[in-house]
Amino acid sequence: MRDQGCATRSESDAFGPIEVADSALWGAQTQRSIQNFPIGGAAARMPLPVVRAFGVVKKCAAQYNVDAGRLEPRLGQAIVQAADELIAGALDEHFPLVTNMNVNEVLSNRAIQLLGGVVGSKSPVHPNDHSSNDSFPAAMSIAAATELERSLLPSLEALRAALTAKAAEFASIVKIGRTHTQDATPLTLGQEFGGYAQQIAYGASRVRAALPRLQELALGGTAVGTGLNTVEGYGEEIAARIASETGLPFAPNKFEALAAHDAMVEASGALNVLACSLNKIANDESSLCLQTSRARSSIMPGKVNPTQCEALTMVMGNHVAITVGGAQGHFELNVFKPLMISNLLSSTRLLADSCRCFTKSCVAGIEPNRARIRQLMESSLMLVTALNPHIGYDKASQVAKKAHAEGTTLIEAGGPAGLGFFTPEQFAQWVVPEQMVGPAPKK
Amino acid sequence: MRDQGCATRSESDAFGPIEVADSALWGAQTQRSIQNFPIGGAAARMPLPVVRAFGVVKKCAAQYNVDAGRLEPRLGQAIVQAADELIAGALDEHFPLVTNMNVNEVLSNRAIQLLGGVVGSKSPVHPNDHSSNDSFPAAMSIAAATELERSLLPSLEALRAALTAKAAEFASIVKIGRTHTQDATPLTLGQEFGGYAQQIAYGASRVRAALPRLQELALGGTAVGTGLNTVEGYGEEIAARIASETGLPFAPNKFEALAAHDAMVEASGALNVLACSLNKIANDESSLCLQTSRARSSIMPGKVNPTQCEALTMVMGNHVAITVGGAQGHFELNVFKPLMISNLLSSTRLLADSCRCFTKSCVAGIEPNRARIRQLMESSLMLVTALNPHIGYDKASQVAKKAHAEGTTLIEAGGPAGLGFFTPEQFAQWVVPEQMVGPAPKK
Amino acid sequence: MRDQGCATRSESDAFGPIEVADSALWGAQTQRSIQNFPIGGAAARMPLPVVRAFGVVKKCAAQYNVDAGRLEPRLGQAIVQAADELIAGALDEHFPLVTNMNVNEVLSNRAIQLLGGVVGSKSPVHPNDHSSNDSFPAAMSIAAATELERSLLPSLEALRAALTAKAAEFASIVKIGRTHTQDATPLTLGQEFGGYAQQIAYGASRVRAALPRLQELALGGTAVGTGLNTVEGYGEEIAARIASETGLPFAPNKFEALAAHDAMVEASGALNVLACSLNKIANDESSLCLQTSRARSSIMPGKVNPTQCEALTMVMGNHVAITVGGAQGHFELNVFKPLMISNLLSSTRLLADSCRCFTKSCVAGIEPNRARIRQLMESSLMLVTALNPHIGYDKASQVAKKAHAEGTTLIEAGGPAGLGFFTPEQFAQWVVPEQMVGPAPKK
Amino acid sequence: MRDQGCATRSESDAFGPIEVADSALWGAQTQRSIQNFPIGGAAARMPLPVVRAFGVVKKCAAQYNVDAGRLEPRLGQAIVQAADELIAGALDEHFPLVTNMNVNEVLSNRAIQLLGGVVGSKSPVHPNDHSSNDSFPAAMSIAAATELERSLLPSLEALRAALTAKAAEFASIVKIGRTHTQDATPLTLGQEFGGYAQQIAYGASRVRAALPRLQELALGGTAVGTGLNTVEGYGEEIAARIASETGLPFAPNKFEALAAHDAMVEASGALNVLACSLNKIANDESSLCLQTSRARSSIMPGKVNPTQCEALTMVMGNHVAITVGGAQGHFELNVFKPLMISNLLSSTRLLADSCRCFTKSCVAGIEPNRARIRQLMESSLMLVTALNPHIGYDKASQVAKKAHAEGTTLIEAGGPAGLGFFTPEQFAQWVVPEQMVGPAPKK
Repeated sequence: MRDQGCATRSESDAFGPIEVADSALWGAQTQRSIQNFPIGGAAARMPLPVVRAFGVVKKCAAQYNVDAGRLEPRLGQAIVQAADELIAGALDEHFPLVTNMNVNEVLSNRAIQLLGGVVGSKSPVHPNDHSSNDSFPAAMSIAAATELERSLLPSLEALRAALTAKAAEFASIVKIGRTHTQDATPLTLGQEFGGYAQQIAYGASRVRAALPRLQELALGGTAVGTGLNTVEGYGEEIAARIASETGLPFAPNKFEALAAHDAMVEASGALNVLACSLNKIANDESSLCLQTSRARSSIMPGKVNPTQCEALTMVMGNHVAITVGGAQGHFELNVFKPLMISNLLSSTRLLADSCRCFTKSCVAGIEPNRARIRQLMESSLMLVTALNPHIGYDKASQVAKKAHAEGTTLIEAGGPAGLGFFTPEQFAQWVVPEQMVGPAPKK
Repeated sequence: MRDQGCATRSESDAFGPIEVADSALWGAQTQRSIQNFPIGGAAARMPLPVVRAFGVVKKCAAQYNVDAGRLEPRLGQAIVQAADELIAGALDEHFPLVTNMNVNEVLSNRAIQLLGGVVGSKSPVHPNDHSSNDSFPAAMSIAAATELERSLLPSLEALRAALTAKAAEFASIVKIGRTHTQDATPLTLGQEFGGYAQQIAYGASRVRAALPRLQELALGGTAVGTGLNTVEGYGEEIAARIASETGLPFAPNKFEALAAHDAMVEASGALNVLACSLNKIANDESSLCLQTSRARSSIMPGKVNPTQCEALTMVMGNHVAITVGGAQGHFELNVFKPLMISNLLSSTRLLADSCRCFTKSCVAGIEPNRARIRQLMESSLMLVTALNPHIGYDKASQVAKKAHAEGTTLIEAGGPAGLGFFTPEQFAQWVVPEQMVGPAPKK
Repeated sequence: MRDQGCATRSESDAFGPIEVADSALWGAQTQRSIQNFPIGGAAARMPLPVVRAFGVVKKCAAQYNVDAGRLEPRLGQAIVQAADELIAGALDEHFPLVTNMNVNEVLSNRAIQLLGGVVGSKSPVHPNDHSSNDSFPAAMSIAAATELERSLLPSLEALRAALTAKAAEFASIVKIGRTHTQDATPLTLGQEFGGYAQQIAYGASRVRAALPRLQELALGGTAVGTGLNTVEGYGEEIAARIASETGLPFAPNKFEALAAHDAMVEASGALNVLACSLNKIANDESSLCLQTSRARSSIMPGKVNPTQCEALTMVMGNHVAITVGGAQGHFELNVFKPLMISNLLSSTRLLADSCRCFTKSCVAGIEPNRARIRQLMESSLMLVTALNPHIGYDKASQVAKKAHAEGTTLIEAGGPAGLGFFTPEQFAQWVVPEQMVGPAPKK
Repeated sequence: MRDQGCATRSESDAFGPIEVADSALWGAQTQRSIQNFPIGGAAARMPLPVVRAFGVVKKCAAQYNVDAGRLEPRLGQAIVQAADELIAGALDEHFPLVTNMNVNEVLSNRAIQLLGGVVGSKSPVHPNDHSSNDSFPAAMSIAAATELERSLLPSLEALRAALTAKAAEFASIVKIGRTHTQDATPLTLGQEFGGYAQQIAYGASRVRAALPRLQELALGGTAVGTGLNTVEGYGEEIAARIASETGLPFAPNKFEALAAHDAMVEASGALNVLACSLNKIANDESSLCLQTSRARSSIMPGKVNPTQCEALTMVMGNHVAITVGGAQGHFELNVFKPLMISNLLSSTRLLADSCRCFTKSCVAGIEPNRARIRQLMESSLMLVTALNPHIGYDKASQVAKKAHAEGTTLIEAGGPAGLGFFTPEQFAQWVVPEQMVGPAPKK
């Protein structure tokens, strides 16, 4: 993780002294964990939004403690400044673990630096003094809610808007429908895009519906949810401060938010639905672009990068791991917290990035090949259904079978040169795809 | 599926004649599917709520068609009566497949019976005449919404109420907390049960939140969502009739509800959270009952049947299959419909049954062993935290270490006979578990 | 489960007396469980192969005990006869639960009947006397190994053979390849089918590779794997008897087979691969049949029932539940046994049935439309790659672009009437799809 | 990904010119993909073993081409040197994507550098000239096989050896068994550890069993498996060269290895079993360390970091995503390749790291607290089973009930001071846990 040859300082914890790189702001406990449990490498590292969220927690706690007269203002100010740096991303490299202790050690050392003290001296800001056991679940909630609100929801809204705009633009493009990988009756391309837009709109609603429970903070519950060692009202006040700091409506909870992480499983479930929706839409778009296998000309120029669908599959895998973790809580604590938030943030990012790419590369600039769409529709034998009311089901079937067997059009098979069931004029009058894209008007 | 030796009648479909058992009300197409695709056996059969839901769809459609003058009242009345029998469960044995065609064939044959005709004659009620392609998704929606509303939600409410009652009853029972499979600071048994009750209350909210989208019916969309061959307003009217028939607020949708089944994936996600919640609660209860390994006396007499947790695991597996199915839609249709609704109803039933069993056998009559709980708490070294403010962290640690090493109590280790840090009177005054189950009062 | 109005007898267990239907051979403990834990309904019932496997276990145990002089031959003979009836499927209706106790109660009552005693009297064959705690895991192993060996492997072999036969039959049919849903260079239909056959052959190998560990029986381990209350050599001897009874090479294991069910997770993993393989093959076949969206004529007449793919999805869901169950063992026992075996047998049956249907309806009788395949290939612009060595990459690209833009063939675009890069004779000589389906011969 | 302010060079691809940072060795196509599809951030980057594996593929291909007279030796030598640098990890920073094109661009530019040319000039080594479509699947196979063989299997062997050593060391430590979270009959701690060792040994066998199919290389199949544009024997020869380069027995395959990735799903299934095994073992160990809730003294000093179990859960999630990807192949190509290999390598690393941590921190140095284990066993009421043969089941039950109700020992409850069923001497003679850990000797 660090060069072996670099200068070090000696820090110590309950197990004794340990060397920490001079350039690192973390302390003994973090260093020991890195050495003892090097699992998964860089890819397994906690996502940075958790670091930022910890910054929010620690900043608000420090301010509360100063206001409550429990923390010397000079120290509080240094901690707040260090937390602000952390929130701004300036201390990212000091978080190999993103545990509560890692955060405490970095904030302590950074505050010590700001106060002109000696890094690693634990004075005048001790890494333990200002910690509490409910920090990690609170950071989880804040990180998840923030990323969903600030990153995913805007990207969904942009995609929905782009799809809706295309639905309007394509309202009069009639195309042949597809069910069971076979031609079906016609609909407009606008109707298809309208369906996609509605899927995304509903998907955003699902994410929003999960937010209230995700925005319940375990803060103030301390070790087991009781709030031992806090003062009445602390949970409410710290939640209010965090709401104010983040602009999101956080509220206090205690036992349930500490012991269980149902809200994480719920939010992941909402992301899982989005993965399904986007997978379906992306597959359809991909087929739209490439529909004709022998393609003289594709329906829509453009390219859907299949890696986008792949990313969505990962959301499904993450959801399973979150589910398994969510089922594992034991009495007052669920130890699968890091796995759950790491996966939730991974899914959030994959979806947000996918939506942005998809909007840009597969929706915004798409321009259907109207001639080709028309050609595919007009050559579809499914239009035969429009003949039923005029020549009867049996004759219509004969026309379709003959056209299918001989590889001709309906008009060739059933018109004067074929079975003679109708004239070209009759066919043109009876078979009007534009009239097949909705119910009959009410009389 | 049927005795081979029984009497048969000959029916026919596009592939030719086929023998159907005289006792069966289904027809040629159903019989052919049974013979061609005998996959999975009895356990893979479609759950009966889909049969009932089909009955609702067909009944309302027949009534609409009669009112619209499209169906002869005499035939309509027979179809409605047949559908009512189907809804009442009287025709269950005639549904080896529960496809739209199976339903149509049975309703047709039963209506023919009621009208005094010959079963299998397709006259005067033809199995094709009154069908439409959007029936199955509508039946899915109706079956899912009905089972969630009528079976799962009441069982959740009963469990929540039982847990809430116990939370009140146990409000003054202080016990030792548990985190990381280790003792933690105390809390009340009522606080634990209150957390469980909140999990279930939230779980019910999640199910309720999924209902609106599940109650959007694809009816009126026909083949591809456009409503071809219907009359304007049909979708709205049939949804209103179904709402009236079922007492649930169904509404029309078209393209999205036919092409995608995001609402199924969403509802399954809500059930998946419940499986996690119940798994956690059941494990905790199981541990409560059996907590002490050498158990001279368990904390709570009673028994949690572990098969309940197993059933919940199946909900997670069903959810994965529903998710994979939900991601597979292709243009105007998703062919994984039967898998999705079958799994969703399976999960619904497993959860509802589990809740009912759990309420009855593990909550309602549970009676904690207060003496044992008290004993476990009083012997916990975690109470040492209450000494910190009085003798300091270092001395408190010494006491805990000594007690741990020598297998004695805190009072033995730290009192006059041990380290001499306090008198028994001081200990009794300082270490009051009842005062450790909440924040300090605000001054 | 039974009519309420039927005649009953009174049986009793540790909790007191309970009414059991006269027609039922089960006893008090089974009846109590049915009433206390009615979870999941008929679809959640244990698959019948477990009943059969229990029959094998009990039969062999009875024979062993008779031979060891621990069981009176008269009683042993009655138990063996009852077990044989159970193996033959004659007692299926008496297994609402398929627990060890259910089996013991039914065998005891049936043996009592055979001996002319009073059902429910527990005399002369007591349901407890001849039971042991390691029966269920042994029945799991036997049921799983038997179904994989007798049902799945033969159906895989039949499918592989059918695919191999078609691969030979189609060895000279050259078709256009497909990658990324786009045309690619040509290959033979036989090469495609050869790939499918290899997937199935490997799939069968995977199942076979899992059998040895699945065929290790926990029998003789009794309560915790130690074999307490057995005699040295019992595990080996009972395994040998079961091997002889079933014709499968069962072997003894103790601690690992009782405490963990890794072999179940492994076998489920092999089924999971098969589900993936079959899903891919079924999708390809489905596309082969329906390949051309505007299909004047499909490549292959026939129909792939999409419900087959759905069934395969359920195998993936079952695998997740088995995995979660398999991760849950606790010390000497894993309580998720019933879930695991139930899901494994469900997956086995779904796959075996799917393979049989697939072989019959989608492989055996399939007859490709050679003209259509030829037409699609010849019109593919991908053949342009064969021009590269003759006219260079740049000119070849020009030809493809022009053909694509104008909807013409390569020969029209690049020949005398177009860009004039080659004569028809040259084109015919240079572009020979048959020469594009393998590497160049070694010089 | 790169500082915006850095110096750039202009490269170009089919879409026109694009700026690439001077310090980057990749080219236009890679740069465009980074800008167009920025999905998932650093955590979503392809694992480095794939880069190394690509190095092997390209090195061997270059050598083959030189030997076959298709590549100028001077260029070949430069490519080989560049590939060796890549294998050695010296070019890691130049792989933001790890696509075949990224590899080709970097190797081309690095070879150009080595030959004194201008980076980005595509001369004298063009990034396209020496590529082929089957490279990525081959790199997948090589990366997976290498990591399983070189990283996971040794870590499993070390864990198995450590567990086996402990099994021997603990062979005489008798402890109380546990089933259903309750006391059961005794066994030795060595028997428990022997079961764990066997789970790991079998787990390694499962991984080894998956290797042969994973070591089949698609190389030589080119675009669709036919080997178009190669010479007969190429597939065999390149596989032999790669086998020689890596020391692993790679073999050629064509259609199946390109179109499907069943071998990846299979290998992931083997990892999934390991995740279950390790989860069970880790939970047991964790409980061993912390077994007694009121723990005056734990059974084993030490600490199992729960994050290890969490990591294992991610393996289950990865497996689901790999399964979904594996089911998606379409004709001659499966586009989920990157997802599948990325997840497989992630799982491999998580398991290998977990095994190493676990061996070191939870097995190697573990020292059971024999006194505590003895105490727990001796106070267990389960020993009552040893009284059955001497005083009968009924009296033994009475003793157990009395002891349970009064919180006393068996000897207190049943001895002279209690029910008077035995003397202390009789108890000592009858209840000998050491004699309960195996079957009775054969007479």
